[in-house]
Amino acid sequence: MEHGGDLTLAIERFGGMQDSWLDLSTGINPHSYPIPQDISLKSWTALPTKGAEERLISAARHVYRVPDNLGLVAAPGTQLLLSLLPLILPEGPVALTSPTYSSHKAAWTREGRAPVELSSIYALPADAKVVLLVNPNNPDGQLIDVKSLLEIARTLTERGGYLVVDEAFADVIPGASLLSHISNENVLVLRSFGKYFGLAGLRLGFLAGPHAITRRVSDLLECWCLSGLALEIGTRALRDKNWQDQMTRQLIEEMADLTVLLSQRELSVFGGTPLYALAGLRNAKGLHEALARRHIWTRIFDYAPTWIRFGLPGSPENLERLSDALADAKKEL
Amino acid sequence: MEHGGDLTLAIERFGGMQDSWLDLSTGINPHSYPIPQDISLKSWTALPTKGAEERLISAARHVYRVPDNLGLVAAPGTQLLLSLLPLILPEGPVALTSPTYSSHKAAWTREGRAPVELSSIYALPADAKVVLLVNPNNPDGQLIDVKSLLEIARTLTERGGYLVVDEAFADVIPGASLLSHISNENVLVLRSFGKYFGLAGLRLGFLAGPHAITRRVSDLLECWCLSGLALEIGTRALRDKNWQDQMTRQLIEEMADLTVLLSQRELSVFGGTPLYALAGLRNAKGLHEALARRHIWTRIFDYAPTWIRFGLPGSPENLERLSDALADAKKEL
Repeated sequence: MEHGGDLTLAIERFGGMQDSWLDLSTGINPHSYPIPQDISLKSWTALPTKGAEERLISAARHVYRVPDNLGLVAAPGTQLLLSLLPLILPEGPVALTSPTYSSHKAAWTREGRAPVELSSIYALPADAKVVLLVNPNNPDGQLIDVKSLLEIARTLTERGGYLVVDEAFADVIPGASLLSHISNENVLVLRSFGKYFGLAGLRLGFLAGPHAITRRVSDLLECWCLSGLALEIGTRALRDKNWQDQMTRQLIEEMADLTVLLSQRELSVFGGTPLYALAGLRNAKGLHEALARRHIWTRIFDYAPTWIRFGLPGSPENLERLSDALADAKKEL
Repeated sequence: MEHGGDLTLAIERFGGMQDSWLDLSTGINPHSYPIPQDISLKSWTALPTKGAEERLISAARHVYRVPDNLGLVAAPGTQLLLSLLPLILPEGPVALTSPTYSSHKAAWTREGRAPVELSSIYALPADAKVVLLVNPNNPDGQLIDVKSLLEIARTLTERGGYLVVDEAFADVIPGASLLSHISNENVLVLRSFGKYFGLAGLRLGFLAGPHAITRRVSDLLECWCLSGLALEIGTRALRDKNWQDQMTRQLIEEMADLTVLLSQRELSVFGGTPLYALAGLRNAKGLHEALARRHIWTRIFDYAPTWIRFGLPGSPENLERLSDALADAKKEL
């Protein structure tokens, strides 16, 4: 599975050095949580301790507002978690709102459980046992309200099924998360640490849901696969409410600036979140390649030839570089 | 699953602070590979790239002498790998040499495939489909020769089965590894990075074996669950042949010193590797607790009440501290 943000392929095709590229191909926050200078040596050398894991889980419970009756398990990235779900969730038809982040479909298809693709979550198939959606959605930012999600969850629970909500980008949209509203519905919620905190290399993600499921995942992972660094830095960052409050405001402002810039360059933004903007134009691939020749890497989608997604540039200089490149690139289209 | 090296429980029972304890409860090298001062910021912030993963795998292939026709996959620790094997390997009876590292049995039992325990690998059950052993064994250091292992592997291969060899401690015993001798037998070999390089907190381990199996594991993990730090530091450490040569010699010498000390204190060492010594005495639990009151944490085994395992103290000062504590503790037994 390839992913946005892997410049290996970009460099193979368009040259340049890793550091000369402006990578806008992901939704990862360009302002990473500061790496502490006083990381304890034990975080590198020793096996993760039970205590360190409990502190991380407790901090995550608080920030994500996970109800006490739900289980919460941490893993080296949500990618691993979503990949294990097809092995764990009950048999039966699977449905997924589409288009969305492609790894969900890939993981279920690999296990011989290819999902039905729904154009709307409201068109719930009568036999679906597992329903997946990304909320807010990637790449278009579509957001399904809590009340509707709970209704769907109850319907699925009644038939012994599960609703899986990938909240990879919910951090930047206050009020978007379903978590605090869940009582005893069969809902699984994935939360990504690396995107919002800008530390994707640390590999850290969470799954909240009924204990029977989180315990099964926890058994498989044996809770040892988190690095000491993910435990230590993850706990600190999740506890740092000040950083989070300030960062959410900052990202919203920076996305406003990016949206204005894209409009000025005649790209209409029709979706996204504060971490990425989805714009439409006739020849998205042409623009993507013209920008790549200028060593700016964006994301396009083979299922939607008019879409192009931009992550946040992260600084006024980078915003200006994008602005100039867009003006320049347009001459080639 | 608890593990050696978790001082959380030790501190709960016997007090003290994390840093005041001398932790001899693991087989982790106390001389960790030096953490580079120039870790690239991208290793923290960006998703792992294909290129970085390929460099790691290539370095591991070379050091572990993995034949070209075998697959090799990296994971955040061998614990996760051994936990996935029962989901992947063919159905049928499972056998395991015993006593050994307890996680193997736990992982298979959890999946409803409780292994038959063998007192010797030579007593291979006629119906066994999967046979597991740790080589050299933990905690007793027992080493099965390559020729015997290959014969067993061939027998299993003929019946569509697999031999799984956990070489967690093979780094310190030159010539012990089966890897370079495998041609087309169904053998899976687990290699741990963290123990020998003293970086257990980094979470890094490998599985080598037939492509059909490593590809399945690789699909499940989607190759994204390695932290950027594990990729960067793992690659450097595996390429650093000088450090490895010098370290292997040093560990052998330090183990000689520890063995002499334990004998002087009337503990007879009857097994182990250069990373841990297994000693016997009438009341191992009594000694374990007397040392714990002195904030030295060792490992005992509920299945063998006369065994106590010591990791390397790591410095002359720590060796002396152990020496004094042993002399002192004996008065209480």
